[in-house]
Amino acid sequence: MESLKQEVWKANMALPEHGLVTFTWGNVSGVDRESGYVVIKPSGVPYEELRPEQMVVVDLDGNVVEGDCRPSSDTATHVLLYRSFPRIGGIVHTHSPWATSFAQAGRGIPALGTTHADYYYGEVPCTRPMTRAEIEGAYEAETGHVIVETFERAGLDPLQIPAVLVHSHAPFCWGKDADNAVHNAVVLEEVAAMALRTYQLNPDTPPMDRHLLDRHYLRKHGAGAYYGQS
Amino acid sequence: MESLKQEVWKANMALPEHGLVTFTWGNVSGVDRESGYVVIKPSGVPYEELRPEQMVVVDLDGNVVEGDCRPSSDTATHVLLYRSFPRIGGIVHTHSPWATSFAQAGRGIPALGTTHADYYYGEVPCTRPMTRAEIEGAYEAETGHVIVETFERAGLDPLQIPAVLVHSHAPFCWGKDADNAVHNAVVLEEVAAMALRTYQLNPDTPPMDRHLLDRHYLRKHGAGAYYGQS
Amino acid sequence: MESLKQEVWKANMALPEHGLVTFTWGNVSGVDRESGYVVIKPSGVPYEELRPEQMVVVDLDGNVVEGDCRPSSDTATHVLLYRSFPRIGGIVHTHSPWATSFAQAGRGIPALGTTHADYYYGEVPCTRPMTRAEIEGAYEAETGHVIVETFERAGLDPLQIPAVLVHSHAPFCWGKDADNAVHNAVVLEEVAAMALRTYQLNPDTPPMDRHLLDRHYLRKHGAGAYYGQS
Amino acid sequence: MESLKQEVWKANMALPEHGLVTFTWGNVSGVDRESGYVVIKPSGVPYEELRPEQMVVVDLDGNVVEGDCRPSSDTATHVLLYRSFPRIGGIVHTHSPWATSFAQAGRGIPALGTTHADYYYGEVPCTRPMTRAEIEGAYEAETGHVIVETFERAGLDPLQIPAVLVHSHAPFCWGKDADNAVHNAVVLEEVAAMALRTYQLNPDTPPMDRHLLDRHYLRKHGAGAYYGQS
Repeated sequence: MESLKQEVWKANMALPEHGLVTFTWGNVSGVDRESGYVVIKPSGVPYEELRPEQMVVVDLDGNVVEGDCRPSSDTATHVLLYRSFPRIGGIVHTHSPWATSFAQAGRGIPALGTTHADYYYGEVPCTRPMTRAEIEGAYEAETGHVIVETFERAGLDPLQIPAVLVHSHAPFCWGKDADNAVHNAVVLEEVAAMALRTYQLNPDTPPMDRHLLDRHYLRKHGAGAYYGQS
Repeated sequence: MESLKQEVWKANMALPEHGLVTFTWGNVSGVDRESGYVVIKPSGVPYEELRPEQMVVVDLDGNVVEGDCRPSSDTATHVLLYRSFPRIGGIVHTHSPWATSFAQAGRGIPALGTTHADYYYGEVPCTRPMTRAEIEGAYEAETGHVIVETFERAGLDPLQIPAVLVHSHAPFCWGKDADNAVHNAVVLEEVAAMALRTYQLNPDTPPMDRHLLDRHYLRKHGAGAYYGQS
Repeated sequence: MESLKQEVWKANMALPEHGLVTFTWGNVSGVDRESGYVVIKPSGVPYEELRPEQMVVVDLDGNVVEGDCRPSSDTATHVLLYRSFPRIGGIVHTHSPWATSFAQAGRGIPALGTTHADYYYGEVPCTRPMTRAEIEGAYEAETGHVIVETFERAGLDPLQIPAVLVHSHAPFCWGKDADNAVHNAVVLEEVAAMALRTYQLNPDTPPMDRHLLDRHYLRKHGAGAYYGQS
Repeated sequence: MESLKQEVWKANMALPEHGLVTFTWGNVSGVDRESGYVVIKPSGVPYEELRPEQMVVVDLDGNVVEGDCRPSSDTATHVLLYRSFPRIGGIVHTHSPWATSFAQAGRGIPALGTTHADYYYGEVPCTRPMTRAEIEGAYEAETGHVIVETFERAGLDPLQIPAVLVHSHAPFCWGKDADNAVHNAVVLEEVAAMALRTYQLNPDTPPMDRHLLDRHYLRKHGAGAYYGQS
């Protein structure tokens, strides 16, 4: 658990380094699948004061197991995603400005080029707006439900599309661990900015060629991947 | 008074740190409600040379009570806001570029997502254009009057909407103290940038769902707030 | 002359600090009106290697008077402006990205708000395109002539509008000395960025109210100026 | 070969310094025309860990001649360009955000002003989309073929237009050596950003005057160049 705390703390600290957060607008968690425990950032603690020992341990129902701080107010969303997407190991929530602009406009981010295709195997979807009942109910858990519904209805694999935009809100990203989730959050922000500028140059830009998407995604993530060292 | 000077000086120094000011285009003040004294930045002093002891003390009519420097040229606006909005404790004026672009376009910043809703309980309004008489009269005090008129006519609570855009000019933000006002100024700039990009993606984006606005604003500011530590 | 060299060198070094230049795309000069000598940046020398003693001294016809380096390739434009605008003391040329975008679009930057009005008493004009004869002739001197023509035809005072956009090229700014010219160049870039975003929010934004322009320009630059210290 | 490794390593390290890359999204190579050996960045190695001795040496067919790491996954594109453009000495590939936006929109970057004309003698072209056969075949080599085809069909000189946008992908830039190629990559990103903003101000902006293009390109690159020192 201590090494997961260290890992999650480090991933949280990477958010301001990558310019993804203002003030405390972000949180990273990581899960230990064996014990079923999740380590998550405490709520509202400024990054410059954040220490590894402040990380909060919760179970997969969101109950605090260890830690003196209250966990992130988004904890219920995190644990629901861990329960629904059993192969993910880390989750990041930010209000990174370009991706959030797409969420506010209620639009997904289509794959418009190989930068996107290197990490996301198709459009990063935007959820439907949440209903009044969902908002006034167990809001954070319902946020997770709407994300899962979005992936199920479109038949998407959360490992191939490791992010979502929550309508009128902001992105959630994930990955095989906390560090990988942060990596995907950085990429999402980059492709969001490029997609917006692409539409400014050509509002009718179609999604990229399917074969090019396959080629780029699979050369990094497929069985015959040939990017990087060994 | 010395601790308020220190606090206001620190809040002024936070403006360039957050990238909100170019040269001397900004000023922060704080009020001591007991004595009725306001501490404010001296006019035109560069931030890199600014020292706590240069802060100017004025009364609520704007008369200098203490200090060797001339107070900010916007002092009359500040003191009028303190007199009209009795529960605010700090005021920030900047020409932060994204919020100022909305002011120049004569448009308020509607609540388009939860980033906005976490701090502002609805649209940040833009004042009407000032009249020739107001401009040629006691201009800085009249600027304050137009701000107050904007809030009164729309029935807005200045603590729930702690900012305004002055038409063809720039934002004024406030808060419970000088530090909190700076915090709100940073948020305003962020949501302005996101709102502009949201409109670029979808010019017809409606304001966010009312229930979502309630949920986010109230989970941070309502009686049952559950964000942050204790 | 040594103190002017120091001053001009310092003003040149301020360009990269303010993010106004990439590589060597900028130059600052200053004039000593008594001797009629102009100090200007050497051509193509990277800022990180630039030293005060490399500054080149030329006369008002552009002849090198002192210095081991070749002066800026834009020297002929500088000296023509010094001859034509007898009250200016420093000139800056950059390709700062936002102002240059206006120059490329062939549009001036209208006064849309008080940030602009605090420094520029009306629209910063864009010159007409240069003719083939001007381009193929004494190009740099002709650039100066087109700038002067722009001011003369519109009856503009170069001290009240201390900048111009050269069509399909970039801005030239000036001021009472080299430092003040850099100051105006920073402001120009800021107001260009804000003007572009203002037009994105409202393409039909009219120029600001004339009385507001007067008020802001004159409170900083008029006989009864009341901004800053003493 | 050791000095070329040093040079190519240094050029690679310049990419993050100029803000052109996120993570490992970029690579620089240099060629020694005498031996026919190419030095290129290893695939997927983070810049902060990159050391000169990790540079990989390949021949002009892309076979590894020296080095413990796998070369950049884009090596086949690089060597094809070196074989086809015999006078270039260095190549850079990045996903720099503004130029990539043009690539995603499938648009070249026309010469809209003198910043462009100082380095690129006309429009930086965008290739046609690659075919399914090209994408599923020897993809990286085919990328090189499409670039060469673009230059041949339009009769362009790769030394006068030292960059291309690969459709739905990103830019490749080159130059007389690795350092010069990086220089051109920085310029491309600058002119891409300015061009996009220029179109926002005036969507119908025509390419710049031909004589102005000639004048600026030739004063830096022609036989009678008079920019810089000796």
